[in-house]
Amino acid sequence: MDQNLENEKEFTDRAYEMDSTLVDNVLSFIESQNKRGLIALLNEYHAADIADLFEQINPNSRSALIELWGKEMDGEVFAEMDEGLSGDLIEEMPDEVVSSVLKDLETDDVVDLVEDLEKDEQSRIIEALDAVDQIAVLNSLKYPEGTAGRLMARELVMAPTHWNVGQTIDNLRKSKNLPAQFYDVVVVDPMSKPIGKVTLSTLLRARRSIPLIELVDDEFRTIPVTQSQEDVAYAFNQYNMVSAPVVDDENRLVGVITMDDAMEVLGDEADEDIKLLGGVGDESLTDTIFVTVRQRFPWLGFNLLTSILASIVIAQFSSTIEAIVALAVLMPIVASMGGNAGTQTLTVAVRALATKDLTSANAWRVIRREAIVGLLNGLIFAIIIGLIGYYWYGFPMLGAVLAMAMILNLLMAGLAGILVPLLLDKFNLDPALGSSALVTTVTDIVGFFAFLGLAAAILL
Amino acid sequence: MDQNLENEKEFTDRAYEMDSTLVDNVLSFIESQNKRGLIALLNEYHAADIADLFEQINPNSRSALIELWGKEMDGEVFAEMDEGLSGDLIEEMPDEVVSSVLKDLETDDVVDLVEDLEKDEQSRIIEALDAVDQIAVLNSLKYPEGTAGRLMARELVMAPTHWNVGQTIDNLRKSKNLPAQFYDVVVVDPMSKPIGKVTLSTLLRARRSIPLIELVDDEFRTIPVTQSQEDVAYAFNQYNMVSAPVVDDENRLVGVITMDDAMEVLGDEADEDIKLLGGVGDESLTDTIFVTVRQRFPWLGFNLLTSILASIVIAQFSSTIEAIVALAVLMPIVASMGGNAGTQTLTVAVRALATKDLTSANAWRVIRREAIVGLLNGLIFAIIIGLIGYYWYGFPMLGAVLAMAMILNLLMAGLAGILVPLLLDKFNLDPALGSSALVTTVTDIVGFFAFLGLAAAILL
Repeated sequence: MDQNLENEKEFTDRAYEMDSTLVDNVLSFIESQNKRGLIALLNEYHAADIADLFEQINPNSRSALIELWGKEMDGEVFAEMDEGLSGDLIEEMPDEVVSSVLKDLETDDVVDLVEDLEKDEQSRIIEALDAVDQIAVLNSLKYPEGTAGRLMARELVMAPTHWNVGQTIDNLRKSKNLPAQFYDVVVVDPMSKPIGKVTLSTLLRARRSIPLIELVDDEFRTIPVTQSQEDVAYAFNQYNMVSAPVVDDENRLVGVITMDDAMEVLGDEADEDIKLLGGVGDESLTDTIFVTVRQRFPWLGFNLLTSILASIVIAQFSSTIEAIVALAVLMPIVASMGGNAGTQTLTVAVRALATKDLTSANAWRVIRREAIVGLLNGLIFAIIIGLIGYYWYGFPMLGAVLAMAMILNLLMAGLAGILVPLLLDKFNLDPALGSSALVTTVTDIVGFFAFLGLAAAILL
Repeated sequence: MDQNLENEKEFTDRAYEMDSTLVDNVLSFIESQNKRGLIALLNEYHAADIADLFEQINPNSRSALIELWGKEMDGEVFAEMDEGLSGDLIEEMPDEVVSSVLKDLETDDVVDLVEDLEKDEQSRIIEALDAVDQIAVLNSLKYPEGTAGRLMARELVMAPTHWNVGQTIDNLRKSKNLPAQFYDVVVVDPMSKPIGKVTLSTLLRARRSIPLIELVDDEFRTIPVTQSQEDVAYAFNQYNMVSAPVVDDENRLVGVITMDDAMEVLGDEADEDIKLLGGVGDESLTDTIFVTVRQRFPWLGFNLLTSILASIVIAQFSSTIEAIVALAVLMPIVASMGGNAGTQTLTVAVRALATKDLTSANAWRVIRREAIVGLLNGLIFAIIIGLIGYYWYGFPMLGAVLAMAMILNLLMAGLAGILVPLLLDKFNLDPALGSSALVTTVTDIVGFFAFLGLAAAILL
């Protein structure tokens, strides 16, 4: 359907795919309990790849791997892992292993690891940290979940407004407590309020005598500590930011968020939208079968209720169907086309809301547009399906009824597809949450009711 | 359904949403043809926000805005815009405006702007650039679409292996032709092969006498110039990279990709998956009604064909339905539950393929897992729907038939949901492309056939 997609795929060389000899080697080191071999092998890999390895092997091998690797484990691996899985694995570890594993992590990664755990498991992990980190983690946990405060690192690089380039570089060389990576220097006033920032590439290019304040970017944005992570990710993406200072409600500098954190949130948000539209929660391949069944149950249960509703509509027309069995044969076509057209509109609307392309400023224009698109598609498919219905059963009025029901249902599909996510968003719910099921409920009910109702009125 | 989602939403303050007074002010400046006012107002906004403004206003206002803004236009705005829209707008502009608008853009942005245009429009734009940029753009366009070569910038910062920190900094201060932003210095051997990279924060912290080679990151990855952009984005996300050198097939440095480009690709890929799963192509709210109808048509047409297939299955059982009308009432439940369960599995599989969590190493385990999940959900819902069917029509064997059909269809749904995307991927097609329609075709046909077939065999 899309030529570009196919072209693009030709160049996929399956780069970065989990290397199955790695999996085999690790499993064989576990079997032979070869700790030295294991450590040497894993040293060659990035923490994110080892996290993927954990996700791919079965639960027993995961525990065995943790036991054999022991205190030599790289804490980053847990920061890179699916959140549910990292929690489960850390729970299994003795205290001394936890503390040696987590001591090298940045505090924002520790926050990310512990925030979804039970209270007592959370305290056990925090107590395993050294005192400075404990305070930093506890402070971050005071901010509500899902806000910038949970995402930011507290280690940051700032300079007073009166410094010049030379003083700043000399101070950086002397500082002991710098973050592992940073991308700019935040210039702050005596009240710790950020005035601007100087990127490292600007700093490096400038002569030593130039005052910092002359080098600050014209583009300067701070992130409020209570801003939602979704909005933080949006800002990084929209304004191509690499790092941004985080400020409290008195505008004082409290931390910094870097692009890798924002990129992760952006990926998670898109992932969440896809999964909610597909009727699954926060599911991953590492979940056990039992957990998966339990997580999918409510969505299927909800679908059962809505499909029973649709059946009740059909049941009202039992005698009509008894008179003309062709109606039972054709009715799923109308419902299915409505479901598809509604899902199309819904998908575009959910994405446009996520990227803030659909706002109160253009909502009415988009609603009108979707209604017209629905109507036009309805007309096109009404003609096609009307002719098919006519030729199939040789009964012109049956074709006419099919055509009318199609127009009605595709119009309703367009309206439901745009109105459901807009209303969910208006009530501060995720526009992807349950909206697929709601839209197809509307199109099923309207589809069956319109088709069977028109048939009863016109054909009998 | 998910407590976290609701909590998260409470902190959404609708930050960064398009400011409707901006829209109103721009439109009134256009009406009064107040060029000075317009320029002063737009100067206050980021190019990405102005791009959003263009997307939100109607086509006539877009043309009027371009005409009034004229040569003062910021080229970045077009780099930030939906690709279809930027192409259309540039087409309208006279040559001298095009050249003044594009002269400040980095060459990778120009490549992005022109790559989807018609050949003659492409040449018109490239001819408007100055000679050096022309060569850079033409060179990038030699790489296949969707590869790292199209994504990279050619402006880069490198240093020979024998330099120390002081020499490097002094050379950066002297250089005239540096990129606007950069994050590390690539260390290259005399054959221009990258040996490693030194991040700017490391460079700034180190004493002037330290050799560069002692400061290179242990983690160092180069990107092959023909690697797919999808894989580039994956690597940036997986390894938390901020920038990466791009090399040709002789491993010589040819460019650099930065995280903002990778983040954009990552967002585009997720967007593409959502849209393909939702049965829409590369659609956006700025498309005209006619374009939208035309783009949605093939997906709806395909759905029409598959739903006619399902109807043909039903038609085989016309006499069965005539005998027991309850079958017509209940049959959509079985099909709909199958469609939903299949979509759940499909969604998880498409995401897992995109994030490389589902690979040939664990495919069989995942297939088995989905079959078991389908079977278990089938059993649970078989009991529920069996009882409902029994009580509704007071006919125990009808309940039994419903239950058996449900088990069969949910098992098939799980299998289709995992096998369809795996097979598409195996044939190097996008696993999201058309897979929703294929999976629901399977579940519709199996659902109707199992239910009506069992009914015909057992109840008649």
